[in-house]
Amino acid sequence: MKNKPLVIIGGGGHAAALLEVLLLQGRDVIAVVAPEITAGKELFKGIEHLKSDDAILNFYPSEIQLVNGIGAMPYSCLRTKIHLEFKGLSYDFATVIANSANVSANATISEGVQILSNATICIGCKIGFGTIINTSASIDHDCEIAAFCHIAPGVIMSGQVRVNESVHIGTGAKIINGIQIGKNTIIGVGANIFKTLPDSSIAYGARPFIKLEGK
Amino acid sequence: MKNKPLVIIGGGGHAAALLEVLLLQGRDVIAVVAPEITAGKELFKGIEHLKSDDAILNFYPSEIQLVNGIGAMPYSCLRTKIHLEFKGLSYDFATVIANSANVSANATISEGVQILSNATICIGCKIGFGTIINTSASIDHDCEIAAFCHIAPGVIMSGQVRVNESVHIGTGAKIINGIQIGKNTIIGVGANIFKTLPDSSIAYGARPFIKLEGK
Amino acid sequence: MKNKPLVIIGGGGHAAALLEVLLLQGRDVIAVVAPEITAGKELFKGIEHLKSDDAILNFYPSEIQLVNGIGAMPYSCLRTKIHLEFKGLSYDFATVIANSANVSANATISEGVQILSNATICIGCKIGFGTIINTSASIDHDCEIAAFCHIAPGVIMSGQVRVNESVHIGTGAKIINGIQIGKNTIIGVGANIFKTLPDSSIAYGARPFIKLEGK
Repeated sequence: MKNKPLVIIGGGGHAAALLEVLLLQGRDVIAVVAPEITAGKELFKGIEHLKSDDAILNFYPSEIQLVNGIGAMPYSCLRTKIHLEFKGLSYDFATVIANSANVSANATISEGVQILSNATICIGCKIGFGTIINTSASIDHDCEIAAFCHIAPGVIMSGQVRVNESVHIGTGAKIINGIQIGKNTIIGVGANIFKTLPDSSIAYGARPFIKLEGK
Repeated sequence: MKNKPLVIIGGGGHAAALLEVLLLQGRDVIAVVAPEITAGKELFKGIEHLKSDDAILNFYPSEIQLVNGIGAMPYSCLRTKIHLEFKGLSYDFATVIANSANVSANATISEGVQILSNATICIGCKIGFGTIINTSASIDHDCEIAAFCHIAPGVIMSGQVRVNESVHIGTGAKIINGIQIGKNTIIGVGANIFKTLPDSSIAYGARPFIKLEGK
Repeated sequence: MKNKPLVIIGGGGHAAALLEVLLLQGRDVIAVVAPEITAGKELFKGIEHLKSDDAILNFYPSEIQLVNGIGAMPYSCLRTKIHLEFKGLSYDFATVIANSANVSANATISEGVQILSNATICIGCKIGFGTIINTSASIDHDCEIAAFCHIAPGVIMSGQVRVNESVHIGTGAKIINGIQIGKNTIIGVGANIFKTLPDSSIAYGARPFIKLEGK
């Protein structure tokens, strides 16, 4: 199954980062589906460019795997919508793990998970369907992260944290051990989380104090 | 000496993370001493399980090395107590360094130090007896960290920081260059440290601002 | 050109860290120029020690490459001054990339850039002349960082950030995607940056709350 040809959905920076990983691993990427290619143009050259999601239906679900190259942003559901729509049509999503990621052989990585450069996932972790563990994020032992989450670059999670579905943890946020994060919750850039957060809450990190020139 | 059989003290998440490193390196782990195995059960299978610390005394100090698998928590002395008690009985503690850690050949790593996955230790550093440099922590050039410290996951230390004995630096805390941290001090999750801290002080990082659903 | 002998300017901790990288890569370091060697003395042993910058003029610009080993500190121009002075005299500066750094083959790394241990630079990034990407810093896809910047240890930058000339980003600061940072701006330790910053501004991160013993 691992050697099925791949079709990437999305043509922005996240898609390009995934494509780079896949090409380094010798995977066969046969098409990109996106209205426009806005990043990694050199890499996408030579790969068939389809402009509408409907073009995916021309591939049999059993003959390819999809790669969800839509970036995850807070308050945006597009990435999850793509996952659910095509999963409902029996398509599978490839799991993408960068060569420089450090992933324990004793972690459980679900279908469609994307683990970017220099990210670390320790023993006993479980990462759910379609979740992104972004560049240099570090997930310590026995953490459980549910489906459709985005763990942004440089997030640090100590051991035994439990993150429910559709959570966005922003750039460089830190979470101590044993904390639970409710579903649909958003954690802002650099927030220091030391208490459990309920569903659909927002945790803002500290604002910087800005001093302008001459003031 | 490096090839002596190993006995791990502790059966929780930290012990399991160390066991994973040691098995990958082909080390001979002959027993685990813990009231209960609570993490990494698959890995501990097949390793003799002794339930009381007294069982360690059945091994000659010259014939094994101990691995202190007790996790380090602020306000808890159990880990240090184990180190001192068995060192006093002439047992040695193995130094454990994960394969994915980046440790300078020009750093000095003491007995019993534990360096976890993706941690980085630069040129000129000195790390003291029994100290943990946890997952993805980064210790820059010429830092000196004394014995019995816990540098939690994702801590960032710039160059020439001096950390005295029994200090706990919490998840993702950051310390600028040249700072001194007094003994027994506790630094909280994500705290930004830019001034020297005296002995037995506590530095709390910024709290997040939490907005609950519908509020 | 890559195999030209190297002359390091500076004899402190940053110079020693660079020397360690270069020696591991089998580079021929023929001299260090510094009033005094204050770090990495073991490594500098056997390398000719010249005490004045003027001694550099005894080497033909075409026959060597310089390595700028002056550390970057906020409010100090010494490092940039060295770069400009010797570039004006037709000397080239070597680009130094640590073995443990993760640098995309699809990033553009200018002359004289220094990328330290465990730093990560993703697809589509452009790093300008003489800039330091320090230990464990993580620069996500499509960031552009201009000349003479210092990205301190553990800085986390999400995608498509644009950093103008001579910016200092302090230890462990975090920047969300798409932000612009004006030239000569200083970002303090651990600051959470989620808005564009104008030229010559200063962004201080949150101060910790310190509790002294017995208080």
